[in-house]
Amino acid sequence: MIDQFVGDVMTRSVRTIPPESTASDVATLFANHDIGSAVVVAPETGEYSGIVTESDIMQLVAAGADIDTVRVATFLSAPIVTIASTEDIHAAATLMKAHSVRRLPVTEDGDIVGILTTTDLTHYLPRLRNTILRGRNDLAAQ
Amino acid sequence: MIDQFVGDVMTRSVRTIPPESTASDVATLFANHDIGSAVVVAPETGEYSGIVTESDIMQLVAAGADIDTVRVATFLSAPIVTIASTEDIHAAATLMKAHSVRRLPVTEDGDIVGILTTTDLTHYLPRLRNTILRGRNDLAAQ
Repeated sequence: MIDQFVGDVMTRSVRTIPPESTASDVATLFANHDIGSAVVVAPETGEYSGIVTESDIMQLVAAGADIDTVRVATFLSAPIVTIASTEDIHAAATLMKAHSVRRLPVTEDGDIVGILTTTDLTHYLPRLRNTILRGRNDLAAQ
Repeated sequence: MIDQFVGDVMTRSVRTIPPESTASDVATLFANHDIGSAVVVAPETGEYSGIVTESDIMQLVAAGADIDTVRVATFLSAPIVTIASTEDIHAAATLMKAHSVRRLPVTEDGDIVGILTTTDLTHYLPRLRNTILRGRNDLAAQ
């Protein structure tokens, strides 16, 4: 089997942030948890309204924006590009490339249950290689 | 062949920045070129003294540092974890995981000639899959 599922490789935890938070709040969240994105969720409705990433923060800092006052709602990206946990990781990689993103929130039954990043896929590569070599040896032994 | 070389997958361009630059300069470089790291090079000697990444900027912003005055020399990471262009990509992925880094400057004859990121490896995944399938079909046809 060379196809592996997104659900097996993803990080099963999603950081969320309300749209009223500031860019400074986002930077603190990212720095404290060593993450690069957060899903924007309205606390009243629980609805996903977008995603913010460290690239957004970099753009704001570079532009000299006052990060203590700029709100998430003004710079989030929407709609979110997501992938189902039952998709295979090659489809995820293709989707990331097509949309120029490095993180895909992962859905199950319409809920976001995790996030898949380029780092998750990279950490999976050596395991993928071993799986392939094993499959090849099995095939050769037949 | 499931082994692919770092030199074939890396981005063959390296952004450098002098140690006297400010965090604000770094953020501007990252935002303008949509990159996440730069190699720190002393202009006088041409020597590599470290690397700065978007995580460093995030930490400074989160800490409320004055990014217009903090110098690269005070927050760079050294020594740099590098990989030779002749290594295979699975070794690179293993090295990234071991050092918890997402970018590896790539060396040829002691010079840094490119950078390999988790994004490069992710974009390579679908091609890797096709290579494997082709190899398997060839093997099955023998």
